[in-house]
Amino acid sequence: MRKILIQLDTDPQPSVFDRVVAVDAGVDELFSYGGVTPENVVGLVHGAIFTRGVPDLKNTAIFIGGSNVAAGELLFKKVQKTFFGPMRVSVMMDSNGSNTTAAAAVLAARKQMPLAGATALVLGGTGPVGHRAAQILAAEGAEIRVASRTRDKAEQTCFAIAEAVSAARVTPFATGTPAELDAACDEVSLIIAAGAAGVELISTERRLNLPSLKVAVDLNAVPPLGIGGVEVMDKAKDRNGVICYGAIGVGGTKMKIHRAAVARLFESNDQVLDTAAIYAIGQSL
Amino acid sequence: MRKILIQLDTDPQPSVFDRVVAVDAGVDELFSYGGVTPENVVGLVHGAIFTRGVPDLKNTAIFIGGSNVAAGELLFKKVQKTFFGPMRVSVMMDSNGSNTTAAAAVLAARKQMPLAGATALVLGGTGPVGHRAAQILAAEGAEIRVASRTRDKAEQTCFAIAEAVSAARVTPFATGTPAELDAACDEVSLIIAAGAAGVELISTERRLNLPSLKVAVDLNAVPPLGIGGVEVMDKAKDRNGVICYGAIGVGGTKMKIHRAAVARLFESNDQVLDTAAIYAIGQSL
Amino acid sequence: MRKILIQLDTDPQPSVFDRVVAVDAGVDELFSYGGVTPENVVGLVHGAIFTRGVPDLKNTAIFIGGSNVAAGELLFKKVQKTFFGPMRVSVMMDSNGSNTTAAAAVLAARKQMPLAGATALVLGGTGPVGHRAAQILAAEGAEIRVASRTRDKAEQTCFAIAEAVSAARVTPFATGTPAELDAACDEVSLIIAAGAAGVELISTERRLNLPSLKVAVDLNAVPPLGIGGVEVMDKAKDRNGVICYGAIGVGGTKMKIHRAAVARLFESNDQVLDTAAIYAIGQSL
Repeated sequence: MRKILIQLDTDPQPSVFDRVVAVDAGVDELFSYGGVTPENVVGLVHGAIFTRGVPDLKNTAIFIGGSNVAAGELLFKKVQKTFFGPMRVSVMMDSNGSNTTAAAAVLAARKQMPLAGATALVLGGTGPVGHRAAQILAAEGAEIRVASRTRDKAEQTCFAIAEAVSAARVTPFATGTPAELDAACDEVSLIIAAGAAGVELISTERRLNLPSLKVAVDLNAVPPLGIGGVEVMDKAKDRNGVICYGAIGVGGTKMKIHRAAVARLFESNDQVLDTAAIYAIGQSL
Repeated sequence: MRKILIQLDTDPQPSVFDRVVAVDAGVDELFSYGGVTPENVVGLVHGAIFTRGVPDLKNTAIFIGGSNVAAGELLFKKVQKTFFGPMRVSVMMDSNGSNTTAAAAVLAARKQMPLAGATALVLGGTGPVGHRAAQILAAEGAEIRVASRTRDKAEQTCFAIAEAVSAARVTPFATGTPAELDAACDEVSLIIAAGAAGVELISTERRLNLPSLKVAVDLNAVPPLGIGGVEVMDKAKDRNGVICYGAIGVGGTKMKIHRAAVARLFESNDQVLDTAAIYAIGQSL
Repeated sequence: MRKILIQLDTDPQPSVFDRVVAVDAGVDELFSYGGVTPENVVGLVHGAIFTRGVPDLKNTAIFIGGSNVAAGELLFKKVQKTFFGPMRVSVMMDSNGSNTTAAAAVLAARKQMPLAGATALVLGGTGPVGHRAAQILAAEGAEIRVASRTRDKAEQTCFAIAEAVSAARVTPFATGTPAELDAACDEVSLIIAAGAAGVELISTERRLNLPSLKVAVDLNAVPPLGIGGVEVMDKAKDRNGVICYGAIGVGGTKMKIHRAAVARLFESNDQVLDTAAIYAIGQSL
């Protein structure tokens, strides 16, 4: 029985990126849909769950993608609500690569330092990747500082993380002024930058004045990067005593996680690959 | 040479259901199109018939689907009109599963009783599945009562069936009032219910007062079913002396017919799988 | 590693014709997109170039098609501009079959006569196929007459050909009046007709009065053809001393070129299959 992946993309054109990865993950047949919404997804899910017997449903799975992560999350919920009893297929959500990228960023840091008890600053921490990286770090027992230009947005993300991870230690930080940024950086050993493309969030000068900093991960692929001095190809590159990773340096791990997660979908018909599950797959590689 | 199925769907998104079945029927390559109309289909059909030599055209075929059965019928006609001479590929029409479901319903009844000469009532007989079930029964030599809320619509369906099946014995029945329903049910040995989801067409009480009734097939998957007392999983279930089938009880046969019909498309390049042909495939299983 | 072809079509529905040819050319996975524009193509190209390592990128390629050749040319340029350094995949442009048809037409003539130094008239020479046929002939060293109803349009095409082929000898001809047509036909040994469907550009009578004419190729598939007396199935058919080809007579070679060009895409990741490259592939068959 051939392995079918149903790609549900919230963008008008289904992502080529996700399609190539699906092929390379060993999927036999790929059904790609663009413009998928919670309103038009129900019939597609019914087609997935009503066509093969329950013991065979592990050979059908759903992948949710697209550039709009919030839209992907709504779709992810709606797909799960459409299942009932054993009539379900495995489903993975990775809109804009958010889960696989966040997992790869945290795994890069984890190779270099213990995360439990570490103080970690996530810049751009309210965006989809930053939010997810902070959540994974919180689950690993790190003390998280979620940074955003305004404290309000950072606070909302902290509430969401505290809801997802019961023992989470998360604090919101505004980083709109230099003084606020000083406070956010004080005594951190890990910085992950997941801000908007082409915006420097921390200057090289400031970075060199953080004696506690051990690891810096920058997920921005378009220069200037978010952390001054880090380069996009950096992969465990020692820069003045700080181990640095750039977006491409983290990219190989991200791709491996993505492929492994797609392959995992076909091991049973009840996998729900969300942020935590995708990180767990990354850990097992 | 790989077997290519071109799925032409009248809905905006091509059906996942039909795609999975096509894969499981052994199709090698599936080209899926949504939003197909008689206006935009000609170029697609030309692409099917002008790309391989005539002896190889049996490896390309067309499947017409979508939730709107009337739109599917128009497309089915237009596709056939676009062929010319030996420049043609096999084509199957099963919008909303109408042909495969009707065929499976009649085959279920046929297992339990002779159809020739039987008096059969089709409730919801003017809808796509009801109409097709009535037509197949008429071709089997049964005496058909096509039931609808108003006699007018039922009459139109009867005319259409009489045109399709020369020796058809079909009578329209209104079932808007209890007295009309009594008349429609009188002395029937088979009832097939193909009405709207969630509408009970015959109560349990009435059903128990039909001594001539031998088989009841209900194609409604959402309770309450169309025939009181029948359950969706019923498969040749004896209920007070009546053999009962529910929608899921008939579903296994429907899936087998659907897969066999898709496979049949690739035996030559001139198959036209309409209601009668799909029923004939069901009989041969 | 599976060979992936990404079909970018400027029409709303991606061409079935191009999909079947891709399958028959040995492509393993076909990602088909309709409605592709220079505006929405960038993300699709990024998905092609950022998913596999550079040594593996030869297993991913792009095909540009659709009925609008000018739109396809814009897309072809935009796709190439999106590549950078080694981050590229091979790309082929054949909107409306223009390149493969023009190549096949010239190859048919080339079998029958030397092209270098020949005087060739291209009727409908400003359309996509005519323009390309004239350009290929110019590169082969023929003396080209680009014919159009008005001289202005023919002149523009000549300028474009002169820019593409440095040593091109091209002259614009108006063919709006019988006298103009007489002048255009005078002493030509090859005529290729690539005009609008169903329009006769040269009558049988006129053709029979061209003693210098050796080969006539008509690319019109709908009668009346562009050159009086030629028939659509003609394949090196001698008609009163002129070797004639019709659209279907040329079609076999066109299909072979199309399949070979698609296969060629996967030999390296830096092929750019434009008019000249596709003709070169045709020559090598």
